[in-house]
Amino acid sequence: MYSMSTDLDVQDMARGAALLGSGGGGDPYIGELYLRQQFSEGRSACVVKAAELADDAFVVAIAGVGAPTVALENLVSTNMFLRLLEASENYYGRKIDALISAEIGGGNSIVPLAIGALAGIPVIDADGMGRAFPHLEMTTFSVYGCSATPCVLIDETGNLAHVLATTDRIAEDMVRAVSDSLGAMIYGSFYPMSGRQAKQLAVHDTITHTLEIGRCIRRARESQADPVRGVLKFLDAPEQDRHARELFDGRIVDVGHEVRGGWRWGRVRINSGKGDEPEFSIDIQNEYLVARHKGRTVTIVPDLIAVLDAESAEPLTGDMLRYGQRVRVIGYSAAPVMRRPECLKVFGPRLFGIDEDFCGVEYLVPR
Amino acid sequence: MYSMSTDLDVQDMARGAALLGSGGGGDPYIGELYLRQQFSEGRSACVVKAAELADDAFVVAIAGVGAPTVALENLVSTNMFLRLLEASENYYGRKIDALISAEIGGGNSIVPLAIGALAGIPVIDADGMGRAFPHLEMTTFSVYGCSATPCVLIDETGNLAHVLATTDRIAEDMVRAVSDSLGAMIYGSFYPMSGRQAKQLAVHDTITHTLEIGRCIRRARESQADPVRGVLKFLDAPEQDRHARELFDGRIVDVGHEVRGGWRWGRVRINSGKGDEPEFSIDIQNEYLVARHKGRTVTIVPDLIAVLDAESAEPLTGDMLRYGQRVRVIGYSAAPVMRRPECLKVFGPRLFGIDEDFCGVEYLVPR
Repeated sequence: MYSMSTDLDVQDMARGAALLGSGGGGDPYIGELYLRQQFSEGRSACVVKAAELADDAFVVAIAGVGAPTVALENLVSTNMFLRLLEASENYYGRKIDALISAEIGGGNSIVPLAIGALAGIPVIDADGMGRAFPHLEMTTFSVYGCSATPCVLIDETGNLAHVLATTDRIAEDMVRAVSDSLGAMIYGSFYPMSGRQAKQLAVHDTITHTLEIGRCIRRARESQADPVRGVLKFLDAPEQDRHARELFDGRIVDVGHEVRGGWRWGRVRINSGKGDEPEFSIDIQNEYLVARHKGRTVTIVPDLIAVLDAESAEPLTGDMLRYGQRVRVIGYSAAPVMRRPECLKVFGPRLFGIDEDFCGVEYLVPR
Repeated sequence: MYSMSTDLDVQDMARGAALLGSGGGGDPYIGELYLRQQFSEGRSACVVKAAELADDAFVVAIAGVGAPTVALENLVSTNMFLRLLEASENYYGRKIDALISAEIGGGNSIVPLAIGALAGIPVIDADGMGRAFPHLEMTTFSVYGCSATPCVLIDETGNLAHVLATTDRIAEDMVRAVSDSLGAMIYGSFYPMSGRQAKQLAVHDTITHTLEIGRCIRRARESQADPVRGVLKFLDAPEQDRHARELFDGRIVDVGHEVRGGWRWGRVRINSGKGDEPEFSIDIQNEYLVARHKGRTVTIVPDLIAVLDAESAEPLTGDMLRYGQRVRVIGYSAAPVMRRPECLKVFGPRLFGIDEDFCGVEYLVPR
């Protein structure tokens, strides 16, 4: 158990969450604002290991569902979060003992910490994917039998819905529809689970990992070291089943994207400045999905792709990519559980329309 | 209290509901099939006056929400209706004492009778508008303070949602979104109310009225009388605050329609066969909204417009209109409560984008 209470923690967390967002997941900035507000009012966030929970503790995942742009333009009041907790406890008929993040990448990483600080509820050092994904069913919770529903949805003006779907794939459609009907930004409680389930089904220690990534980039900057090399060295820890590779160093020569079927599709092309022909590409469907070097796949979903500013190692989301930017691209292995066959059936390459089998970055780019 | 148990009753009811649908409301045919099935299995529908209910009785309106075409292509099982009742009683925490129709025009007129017959629950001889309207908030229930939500929504495969909205207009958007996400056909329990509210807020005796309209057309046909004249004579009863006029007799010379923003928009033009210039038009937005003769408004929403086959007086919905058809058009006054200023604010002409004030058909077409 530890406490987060400084603005530096929040900044580190936001930077780490942006990297683990693999280009998507929404901007952590909103969560950052909420959490800083809590700190400025004297509260702190309590982070606990899942193992510290009682088996019969009651845990829910809190997440925003909608369009990140709307979230930025329409900041909800913290009262809404208290109402969400109240509505959830009423509906589930249980006091909530701990919160958990559904996705540690992007915007939904910090919001549970802010709500936990506000309401005095601990947040588990874990999440359901160790990265960001666009759909409710794309979590280890869901793959291993803890459903996203029954869930409680609420918007800022007090509209409320409960959804109980037969599958999490259908839940995704229903929840997305409710969000759209309410202006594309709602918050909800999902995946009601026991402490025992949290221990068994989550990807663990991901808040700590996110903080460490952010710290690592910050400290490398402060020490005038090469921050990309610094974060790479931290991420690549084979003894802990973590593998990271620098995939490419170059300049963005083309950014294409379009919004289609509720997804942001795109492809970014990068070259090393020596020729005209783009050498490196990343396909985007909300998140960075597959990176190819001269046509050969070098990292593929659910492994993560991070595009970092070449100098500062600031992680860049898909929205932030611009023509001419100098970037360095890192491939990073997903948590081992995320690479199992039953998980790949839910969020492997083919689920995103990529006609390739998954292969880990450590095999695609041997040392 | 009376019982409906014959196929002839169902046919009369369906024909009357089609006329009161004012061109929309969906095809009563589905409800007809469900109700006939109940009769064939030896059950009957029990119709009660609201006045017969205890003040503290618990009443809900049952309605399908979605695309009528989908309802026709994908008949749901009657088991789903039993699950809806069970889910509703669980959610509201009350036994349902009686059902009521939200709209007596079109498809949602007969479904409550079928479910009532199936489950042995009486159905109140009343509804929330005496016609059909496309939105949840367009009922006397809603105007006079009984909200459409909390509501219970269910689809055939067992997906479930509850919606509790801050306004019925927002409820409409949320419920419509859930319906769309589940393939555009769900059923729900809406407007939970007391027996006292049913007595005070409903448009009364509308099941009986619907049956009588159907009977009147059938009997006029059987007696070789002019059935349009027959139904007109029945509808026009000034001593009961009912006014009906034959607006036009002619041939359809143009049917235009398009689907835009989830609505079926259109205009049908009719002339009397003597000239080329269309003399009569009806504007359609799901329902027939305004009829004009040589540009002058002769009936306008919430008053009803019925387009009848010129020979058989069969009511024709917007979907059924075809070039060359010979039709006779009737304007029919809405129930007096529906013409009050507070109601016109919710479903008067301006709510459908028509820049005119409401005026009753009896004033627009004096005797």
